[in-house]
Amino acid sequence: MLCIAPQDKAGGDLRVGIIGAGRIGRVHLETLASVAGVKPLIISDIVEPVLQDVVATYGLPAYSLNPDDVINHPDVQAVWICSPSQFHADQIKACARAGKHIFCEKPIATDLAGTLEAIQVAKDCGVKLMTAFQRRFDPSFARLQKAVADGEVGRPISAVLQSRDPAPPPFAYVKGGGGLFKDMAIHDLDIARWLMGSCGKNEPVKIYATGACNVDKAILELKDSNPSEAIDTANILIEFESGSTATIQVCRRATYGYDQRVELFGTEGLVKHENVFPNTVEKWNGDAVRRADPMHNFFMTRYADAYKNETKAFCALLKAGGEVSPSGDDGARALEMAMACDLSLRLGRPVLMSEVQLPAGQKRVAA
Amino acid sequence: MLCIAPQDKAGGDLRVGIIGAGRIGRVHLETLASVAGVKPLIISDIVEPVLQDVVATYGLPAYSLNPDDVINHPDVQAVWICSPSQFHADQIKACARAGKHIFCEKPIATDLAGTLEAIQVAKDCGVKLMTAFQRRFDPSFARLQKAVADGEVGRPISAVLQSRDPAPPPFAYVKGGGGLFKDMAIHDLDIARWLMGSCGKNEPVKIYATGACNVDKAILELKDSNPSEAIDTANILIEFESGSTATIQVCRRATYGYDQRVELFGTEGLVKHENVFPNTVEKWNGDAVRRADPMHNFFMTRYADAYKNETKAFCALLKAGGEVSPSGDDGARALEMAMACDLSLRLGRPVLMSEVQLPAGQKRVAA
Amino acid sequence: MLCIAPQDKAGGDLRVGIIGAGRIGRVHLETLASVAGVKPLIISDIVEPVLQDVVATYGLPAYSLNPDDVINHPDVQAVWICSPSQFHADQIKACARAGKHIFCEKPIATDLAGTLEAIQVAKDCGVKLMTAFQRRFDPSFARLQKAVADGEVGRPISAVLQSRDPAPPPFAYVKGGGGLFKDMAIHDLDIARWLMGSCGKNEPVKIYATGACNVDKAILELKDSNPSEAIDTANILIEFESGSTATIQVCRRATYGYDQRVELFGTEGLVKHENVFPNTVEKWNGDAVRRADPMHNFFMTRYADAYKNETKAFCALLKAGGEVSPSGDDGARALEMAMACDLSLRLGRPVLMSEVQLPAGQKRVAA
Amino acid sequence: MLCIAPQDKAGGDLRVGIIGAGRIGRVHLETLASVAGVKPLIISDIVEPVLQDVVATYGLPAYSLNPDDVINHPDVQAVWICSPSQFHADQIKACARAGKHIFCEKPIATDLAGTLEAIQVAKDCGVKLMTAFQRRFDPSFARLQKAVADGEVGRPISAVLQSRDPAPPPFAYVKGGGGLFKDMAIHDLDIARWLMGSCGKNEPVKIYATGACNVDKAILELKDSNPSEAIDTANILIEFESGSTATIQVCRRATYGYDQRVELFGTEGLVKHENVFPNTVEKWNGDAVRRADPMHNFFMTRYADAYKNETKAFCALLKAGGEVSPSGDDGARALEMAMACDLSLRLGRPVLMSEVQLPAGQKRVAA
Repeated sequence: MLCIAPQDKAGGDLRVGIIGAGRIGRVHLETLASVAGVKPLIISDIVEPVLQDVVATYGLPAYSLNPDDVINHPDVQAVWICSPSQFHADQIKACARAGKHIFCEKPIATDLAGTLEAIQVAKDCGVKLMTAFQRRFDPSFARLQKAVADGEVGRPISAVLQSRDPAPPPFAYVKGGGGLFKDMAIHDLDIARWLMGSCGKNEPVKIYATGACNVDKAILELKDSNPSEAIDTANILIEFESGSTATIQVCRRATYGYDQRVELFGTEGLVKHENVFPNTVEKWNGDAVRRADPMHNFFMTRYADAYKNETKAFCALLKAGGEVSPSGDDGARALEMAMACDLSLRLGRPVLMSEVQLPAGQKRVAA
Repeated sequence: MLCIAPQDKAGGDLRVGIIGAGRIGRVHLETLASVAGVKPLIISDIVEPVLQDVVATYGLPAYSLNPDDVINHPDVQAVWICSPSQFHADQIKACARAGKHIFCEKPIATDLAGTLEAIQVAKDCGVKLMTAFQRRFDPSFARLQKAVADGEVGRPISAVLQSRDPAPPPFAYVKGGGGLFKDMAIHDLDIARWLMGSCGKNEPVKIYATGACNVDKAILELKDSNPSEAIDTANILIEFESGSTATIQVCRRATYGYDQRVELFGTEGLVKHENVFPNTVEKWNGDAVRRADPMHNFFMTRYADAYKNETKAFCALLKAGGEVSPSGDDGARALEMAMACDLSLRLGRPVLMSEVQLPAGQKRVAA
Repeated sequence: MLCIAPQDKAGGDLRVGIIGAGRIGRVHLETLASVAGVKPLIISDIVEPVLQDVVATYGLPAYSLNPDDVINHPDVQAVWICSPSQFHADQIKACARAGKHIFCEKPIATDLAGTLEAIQVAKDCGVKLMTAFQRRFDPSFARLQKAVADGEVGRPISAVLQSRDPAPPPFAYVKGGGGLFKDMAIHDLDIARWLMGSCGKNEPVKIYATGACNVDKAILELKDSNPSEAIDTANILIEFESGSTATIQVCRRATYGYDQRVELFGTEGLVKHENVFPNTVEKWNGDAVRRADPMHNFFMTRYADAYKNETKAFCALLKAGGEVSPSGDDGARALEMAMACDLSLRLGRPVLMSEVQLPAGQKRVAA
Repeated sequence: MLCIAPQDKAGGDLRVGIIGAGRIGRVHLETLASVAGVKPLIISDIVEPVLQDVVATYGLPAYSLNPDDVINHPDVQAVWICSPSQFHADQIKACARAGKHIFCEKPIATDLAGTLEAIQVAKDCGVKLMTAFQRRFDPSFARLQKAVADGEVGRPISAVLQSRDPAPPPFAYVKGGGGLFKDMAIHDLDIARWLMGSCGKNEPVKIYATGACNVDKAILELKDSNPSEAIDTANILIEFESGSTATIQVCRRATYGYDQRVELFGTEGLVKHENVFPNTVEKWNGDAVRRADPMHNFFMTRYADAYKNETKAFCALLKAGGEVSPSGDDGARALEMAMACDLSLRLGRPVLMSEVQLPAGQKRVAA
């Protein structure tokens, strides 16, 4: 395998490219365009008018209908991969071989074999690979994790994560999407592992997942092809090496909005964070004492700051050096946890992480 | 078996007796003394000065050092059993045979055989038997259950119950006490079953319990005699007939006080209740934006209203008729759930409720 | 003037009488009946069936249709005056002359002359007189005041009191009732003065009151007879000796319930207390994130604990000795503040407390 | 007076310039640089390295050490004035005469005469002038105002605004700064007027201001030169045409951070907004149930969104047309209210707005 060495320079602007000018690509571009010392040079997409608009708005010097022009741009040092999931693995590998650092929207690949391979190529080529689990960069999630890492509540004992979408996705998204654990709970699995590992190494060892179809009966027909696609509600209990536990509750529909809460109990106290609302206004009248408005409706508004922060963090890392977090390995680990959930649901019993089948010839990511 | 028929009268005062003048006995007596149409006639205990003080304070006509004098008092119609746990079963049976209705502090008996037998005697004698799970009468628990029963949040999907004591009990209490599930989590098991059954019959079918020793290392030596006594922290996942789940988290110590919270997610929304503080004062200063005072310290203050309400409710029931709730059977069911937790902890896997061993010759309480 | 010396005894039960078996009289009786070491001996009212019911419920030895039988009962040491306002002053004086300590529902009298005279008689006869401003005994008001007195927020700078009733009283109550300041805001005036004086003597010196008719147009016709009766909304700004200020906002109707909040800002921080709800349940659904229930509806439920606490506090004081708080003088001071509000509203400008006209021959209550 | 006509174009980019590259100038520039359809062309400041840094970061085509180069830039259509206060009036007039629309940080001028003159010039030249009271664009203030305007709480009756800085400014800022009302409370005066006028014209008619020196004794020496400079705490009561009232409490130091709250009571309910924290994390331990972090420390973080929103709003207005809000006249009105506060403090009594002295030859801004 041929790898071009990454063009890391002390000082000077960080020159970047973006693949994908969709919703999330534009979010990252806006951030990249506003960070001092960072220069977006080129963006690719398959829709030319979108590219023209984006280039005009943010003053980019170039665009292309071909992602290879981003990957192979001689001045680009790092690439933000915001393309559809099925292209991620190949683009990661191409970037790595071209000596470009990589910020990749989740997932790294659509299966574990592809994930592990892409990660390995990035390692072999010596480029940094960040898996974009943006929640780690949300002010509340990040502050909570810091409290745990700093020992503000002692040693972690148990966590509860509530994670619910405002409405189920279209049937077409669910069907063949890999199921509730892989397409939705994977964020929560990463957060649970991140929190519980905040005070030292502490990997998941056993997972018990239950699931049901409560809010979207259309998906029941997927039961035979993939049971994890036929559920819209799940309860996941994760046991860690230290004996601590994390409970994750996911559902594809909460009538009240996008429910994203964590609480963690430790030997010296408890930390929790609440849902976020668009403002702090309360309204009191004959009907109720209530919030004036519902909580944020979905991830684009709820995690607006997190998206900015993660891109800024990766830029800062590329300039200052250090360990990537969440790394490619973190992405692989979350995927393995989701696979353990799939297996547990199928078997109706807790499964050990070691029961998760690795691709032939692969060995487990070092815990 | 000889039973004297209960002396139920339409109209007139309800005449009651109390066994036990300890902390909880006095709480119930104070309530009984203040309810219009209820007359406490006699109380027993083994400490005469305590009895003298109580009788003087509440103007009771009589006291005795012998509980049989309460049970057999010719004018007493109902007895509040507030004696130590090991006497409950015999006193229930004696009351039942004497035709007295029974309000019994939990537990009904210290084992399932004794529990089922006492319940059966009460049924055979036609007396009402209430198991004093006081949380059902707390304003917040009760309102939450009403919301569920009234369909305010649709069909229940999942619940989380946080239940933590402020500090572990003495070693002597833990040793031989039956373990964390029976002596502490039993309240939560009852609440979980009560909530999930609020929209129609919906019994627990499968329970998975994990446990650890996190805050009280002294108890580790009890591991061999009873693993459930050697843990101070547990996570219980209950699956119900409907597919709904309840997660219970218990711990014998929370540094911040007595943690008693429930949230329930349903197809149309979520209800939750928060911890209770002695006042609503907030203090803002250079250190923190905070509550002026910690949450209630333990059950005697946290559930002060609940204790009153449950005694009032049983009085009202005895005067107006109707089904007892929580009944003796509810007490037995909660005990069976605790036994399922014990078994699950021992086996390291979820167990079916049907795996819980019933006493010889007994059949399961009708679900 | 003939005074019988109060029969204070060290030890033994405190024997009390109650005048008035209405709503508030029964509340105090229930408390008196449940406090160890206190014996209610007699109650009077004008409705015999009510008396019979009360006596049966609480086991009182006697009742009478004549309040003099309470006042002159040879064994009664203290009297709770819960009769209509117009009888208060005469009953206070009669009690004082009979050597009975007095707990008096507000007001002491319907005018300042009567108030000052009744207070003087109580002083002359050496009996204790408590003005029942129950809010001082509410857990949240009391905790807030303690924070101020203990210097938890430094020196008081300014306070805001929100005080709103759920609905206006009947026209008959308003007409001739003395107006918004005397019949409603007087509680808030007392609280403001109490809080601001918590760190040392600090009396009100200047008051500016504005008022409007916003929610009950019927009362506008009272404008000429008494402008303070023709308003249902007021804003009161009180300046104290120390330079600190208190703002009181009262209104006869808040659609959302009984609004009773205080916040106090000091040199080292802020304390505030919130409204009280019947439970802590929140409901989240497609309509709103909201409290499951409205706040307490009115004073009988909102201040249920406060009523108990004030009666217990007076009992404890009578047994242990000490200064009465709130005293008769406190009641007079609050009335003078209400009169300053009346005057300010009439003149459209701030008035000095010294502008409030005292009855002929009276001198100002020592500040 | 010669005015160049504003170069408003349908469609095309809005081309803007910025005077001042200090803290607030950069904030506005960052926003201007990120809004689609807006092009910052030039910025001026007196510090060249700052300009070089800014131009590099945001890709501006030009900078100058002379603000006239911004004002007279042939392609610039609108200017953001972010220079020190003493230059505002002259720059407004110069911009107006050059046909440039104006976004001006408060104040418009340091006195009323200058303010009215600058406004008049802008009107005469037909350019739009926005006074940057950013709080109107904060999500919580804006939502609260919308609730009022939409009648969600009926007709406004009274408002309370709490406005406290975390720490007093340097003595040099206070001395000669115009005093607490003009340099600090002016924002609150604008908000009070804006809210109370949300349901139709409703101007302030009478203002009563009290003040004290509580937290910064150094300023007491300014008492003779300007009493409003010798106070750090004030209470302002504003009476409006409709009879509604607004109470403003300001203080130069709150130990707990930047306190910025409003509550408004109306005939059909109440709306309020709370302080904003950097995250939603709570920490519970043996010390307290508390926020993990203090509230936002000061205006640059508390109003980060508001600064963006106001600049975006003015851009949108310039492209789409419509009335400016807050306008120059709004700025003048707030200044007149602050002058009324000064006068009231001096006189120790409420003053009518009509008592505020206008500059010779000027007539009052139409209410």
